[in-house]
Amino acid sequence: MKPEKMRSIGVLWSGDHLFEGTVETLEMLRSKGKQVVFVTNNSTKSRADYKKKLESMGIPASEDEVFGSSYSAAIYISRILSLPPTQKTVFVLGESGIETELDSESIPHIGGTDPAYNRIIEPSDYTSIASGQALDPSVGVVLAGLDFHLNYLKLAYAFAYLQRGAKFFATNMDTTLPSAGSLFPGGGAISAPLTAMMGGEKPMAFGKPSQAMMDAIEGKFKFDRKKACMVGDRLDTDIRFGIEGGLGGTLCVLTGVTKSEKEWEGEGKEVVPTAWVKQLGDLRG
Amino acid sequence: MKPEKMRSIGVLWSGDHLFEGTVETLEMLRSKGKQVVFVTNNSTKSRADYKKKLESMGIPASEDEVFGSSYSAAIYISRILSLPPTQKTVFVLGESGIETELDSESIPHIGGTDPAYNRIIEPSDYTSIASGQALDPSVGVVLAGLDFHLNYLKLAYAFAYLQRGAKFFATNMDTTLPSAGSLFPGGGAISAPLTAMMGGEKPMAFGKPSQAMMDAIEGKFKFDRKKACMVGDRLDTDIRFGIEGGLGGTLCVLTGVTKSEKEWEGEGKEVVPTAWVKQLGDLRG
Repeated sequence: MKPEKMRSIGVLWSGDHLFEGTVETLEMLRSKGKQVVFVTNNSTKSRADYKKKLESMGIPASEDEVFGSSYSAAIYISRILSLPPTQKTVFVLGESGIETELDSESIPHIGGTDPAYNRIIEPSDYTSIASGQALDPSVGVVLAGLDFHLNYLKLAYAFAYLQRGAKFFATNMDTTLPSAGSLFPGGGAISAPLTAMMGGEKPMAFGKPSQAMMDAIEGKFKFDRKKACMVGDRLDTDIRFGIEGGLGGTLCVLTGVTKSEKEWEGEGKEVVPTAWVKQLGDLRG
Repeated sequence: MKPEKMRSIGVLWSGDHLFEGTVETLEMLRSKGKQVVFVTNNSTKSRADYKKKLESMGIPASEDEVFGSSYSAAIYISRILSLPPTQKTVFVLGESGIETELDSESIPHIGGTDPAYNRIIEPSDYTSIASGQALDPSVGVVLAGLDFHLNYLKLAYAFAYLQRGAKFFATNMDTTLPSAGSLFPGGGAISAPLTAMMGGEKPMAFGKPSQAMMDAIEGKFKFDRKKACMVGDRLDTDIRFGIEGGLGGTLCVLTGVTKSEKEWEGEGKEVVPTAWVKQLGDLRG
């Protein structure tokens, strides 16, 4: 049993339950010539993992249609960030989805799912980390995402690299992960100890609502933002992502985190979707 | 090998090296009738552990002279906090020092060093935690301290209890732990993910500079604050603790975190000790 089999909620499904009309709605949109892009902050899955998940739910999809926060981070590190060749290694706090996407951009990485880090810290570690003996001098980036294998040793390594000047990145800043009808620690909770240790320094994040992700999507699909609509269930990530990206519209569905239109009604609300439906399937004529 | 054997620095010693004149200075103070109290934010050791450590370094000490952040938290929970009998259990994120001090006040606790929590989260955990089936309904407090066995499962449990209304306490807020000449994750880094998940809510903390600790010390020793001096190596915890507690004086030693008097000199510095010496031993005639 793997942690990624947990029950998640959102726009398309809740756990293993596909919302009614999801498949037909996506087919309808595609038949009208619309480009569909699946944008997820889940860093534990690679694009290939997501394609499999979508197909297992009966939704035809290609890897290219999937944009995850890990992929977004990998694109940024390999194509935008100019790291000297001697500092190109990424220390990962996270699951295999991050590693797969770093691999797809040929970015060297350590940490992550390496079982060598899956243990309790020992007295000799303090000396070897503090002296630098246990550290890889080529690490120039610490990338934190949702890590079901988080431990003190990995935090100690990540902090040591940050103190030596490594850049501080996070796949996403979602502090909670909806699952089984409740909330669990999210990717943003994994980077929080490092932010505290670094005196409040926040990581650069690549998930929604970070516009680094929108830029990466635009770079790939060359779409007209004014003719694009962001569909999502979270106001502070999905809907904000669409509004700040200057998209033509945003559509909120009530099948995930947001439960009612009352959540954005009233004075002083900054993030208000253009439209809403109870579920995606309601878009069918 | 146990994590607490790591090399720590501070006022009395650095790792296994006692600073010159420490023993003689403490003897001199005691011979003049001064009450000595050892105040530590280290939550991983109980008072009994500290007495042993002090004696192993050649410093005679009684358990009553030691005040740790775990003891301070236990005193608060048992004597000040009025929890209904059905909500008296504490969920611990931390080491045995916390458990020993909770035991000393007869406070029931779960989590902590229990090996049952020392594992990777599994899919069934999401359901059993979300439904409450895996939760102890008598938990009324989550207490976070330095935890070398931190993992995702324990964070998920702690967050579940907090969402159900448990009080959020931390032994101390030191985000870093000096060791082997470098910095490692401290107790404040362990509570940081929970603060992020709780939308920024900070725990009530019991270590220096929290005045909950000063009140507990005063409650025990009935000393005259104006005739007391706080000796410490950290400005933001030790010296601030003495100043905010209205003690007669504060003395900074340069054998620990603070390396030079320049760190508190200049305009706008809020935390300035009354006096400083290079090392405690310099107090000898």
